[in-house]
Amino acid sequence: MRSTIKPSYIGLATMVLTFIVTVAHAADPLPSWNEGTAKSAIIQFVGRVTKVDSPDYLAASERVATFDNDGTLWSEHPAYFQLLFAMGRVKALAPKHPEWKTTQPFKAVLEGDMKTLAASGEKGLLTLVMATHAGMTPEEFRKVVDQWLSTARHPKFKRPYTDLVFQPMLEVLDYLRANGFKTFIVSGGGVEFMRAFAEGVYGVPPEQVIGSSIKTKFEMKNGIPELVRQPDLNFIDDKDGKPIGINQYIGRRPIAAFGNSDGDLQMLQYTTIPRDKEDTVPRLGLIVHHTDAEREYAYDHNTPFGKLDKALDEAPKRDWVVVDMKKDWKVIYPWQK
Amino acid sequence: MRSTIKPSYIGLATMVLTFIVTVAHAADPLPSWNEGTAKSAIIQFVGRVTKVDSPDYLAASERVATFDNDGTLWSEHPAYFQLLFAMGRVKALAPKHPEWKTTQPFKAVLEGDMKTLAASGEKGLLTLVMATHAGMTPEEFRKVVDQWLSTARHPKFKRPYTDLVFQPMLEVLDYLRANGFKTFIVSGGGVEFMRAFAEGVYGVPPEQVIGSSIKTKFEMKNGIPELVRQPDLNFIDDKDGKPIGINQYIGRRPIAAFGNSDGDLQMLQYTTIPRDKEDTVPRLGLIVHHTDAEREYAYDHNTPFGKLDKALDEAPKRDWVVVDMKKDWKVIYPWQK
Repeated sequence: MRSTIKPSYIGLATMVLTFIVTVAHAADPLPSWNEGTAKSAIIQFVGRVTKVDSPDYLAASERVATFDNDGTLWSEHPAYFQLLFAMGRVKALAPKHPEWKTTQPFKAVLEGDMKTLAASGEKGLLTLVMATHAGMTPEEFRKVVDQWLSTARHPKFKRPYTDLVFQPMLEVLDYLRANGFKTFIVSGGGVEFMRAFAEGVYGVPPEQVIGSSIKTKFEMKNGIPELVRQPDLNFIDDKDGKPIGINQYIGRRPIAAFGNSDGDLQMLQYTTIPRDKEDTVPRLGLIVHHTDAEREYAYDHNTPFGKLDKALDEAPKRDWVVVDMKKDWKVIYPWQK
Repeated sequence: MRSTIKPSYIGLATMVLTFIVTVAHAADPLPSWNEGTAKSAIIQFVGRVTKVDSPDYLAASERVATFDNDGTLWSEHPAYFQLLFAMGRVKALAPKHPEWKTTQPFKAVLEGDMKTLAASGEKGLLTLVMATHAGMTPEEFRKVVDQWLSTARHPKFKRPYTDLVFQPMLEVLDYLRANGFKTFIVSGGGVEFMRAFAEGVYGVPPEQVIGSSIKTKFEMKNGIPELVRQPDLNFIDDKDGKPIGINQYIGRRPIAAFGNSDGDLQMLQYTTIPRDKEDTVPRLGLIVHHTDAEREYAYDHNTPFGKLDKALDEAPKRDWVVVDMKKDWKVIYPWQK
């Protein structure tokens, strides 16, 4: 049987969908946000680029939004969760590595000496990542992460780490997607670590997760093609690396960027600063400011994890929205609803 | 005004859409393909993974298909089109580079000495790419490519290069997308070169184009954030690089891969070889065999551009579909319809 699509049916479907979308928009899209400038700024921005009669209307293909992960979509204290994962791996693998008892930064991990570990800096953290994240296939690594996510508990909240995602930000992700945005994660975290939960927890599929990575090697093992993760750095998706990663993976400048630390400064600049005087595309830059010591953590200028200093100073000049967690968010985590 | 979505409207929209999709499916989805084993294999594969009552049904998120570009989606003779672009750039930039008159491989380009150019191998080609593709922002590079695409003409067909895309493959791209597949380009070609036309010509958005790349550097220029393309190789998306790139950018193993040369061998292996005995996911590997000297070109084992040797030998063992262009395709290019 051969036939063609009847335009009238497409028209009908479009009408029905338009109606649904209109009704959906009328409900509060951000119920966990208190009324205020932050909430208004998000809703006004989305209206400007999506309302067909808006002078700033943009086609859906241009609606690209990027989100940092640690500290923006989930907590990052007392330390980046991936670092806590790596420390757990060091402890699990230690029996096979007697040399770690006397080698830094492994010794610090095994002795729970966070001060020495923090002092080992980026190089120390990378050493841990290489030792614990490489030497296996992506599928094997995924299983290790899944296992950790299902068993490890956060020291303060005694809950799985994936419970510590920010309910208000989940609403922003949903709201943007409901308005035709494509949402990407652009984070200093390891791409394959984040992919283990990004789809289930954030609704962000693996191909929209951009992160730091180590190299992989293609091998035929007993006739089966496998990739093997190498102890060799491929890309650091932090600071300058964020706009670089955005261009490399997405190939389009975002119109909205969400971050919480100086690691997001260049992404915020790249997303929001107009290219020239003719460039009047609406853009949204947003910083999550951790101000709630009771319900989460309070930190900014002085912290080894998620330092917010330059970006906070630059926010007023750039019209970036600074979210005051304590004031702007009704709840922090989904289980507090 | 607050309201919620009425399930009944969603039900109605779903019904209308289902009807449209059903009617669309009944039409021949591949009208430029002659009836035969190649066409049947594609249609049977799509049916197996998309029919809800099929034992091999896969969720849309698993329907990832990857396509090589040169020789698979458009022609690649008398030379890769990007090489012809680079040669054009060398000629345009030559007045600023008097040293090129005596330096290879530039001398060969300026003298039209294709033999010496071919003999310069991968290193020579990379030298050309670095000299002609770097030193500008991605936006500036995009303009240069756009300009070339709108003015350059193919030596045999006297048409813009974007006219030389394969109509039967455009139909495969559309057919897969209409069936919930996400289509990616995974090509040895430069990612920013391909992004200049992939969305308009193939319907593949920039974030679904994976290719070779050079590094970029983030700079603030007079207060404006810019990326600047560096004469420094970042990634070669060919041979082993294809599965590596797929894992890095997509993070999911494809279930269908389309190629035409030995550069696609590892992508075809990675996509189609079951991981173990329990792995019964249907997979499609397809090779476009250039057999039509009259309507396009005929080549395989012996050619500097798009050599098809090992992959052709391996095809029967792996059950890869080998498309005989001359026999299987009613037309080659869209303007021949």
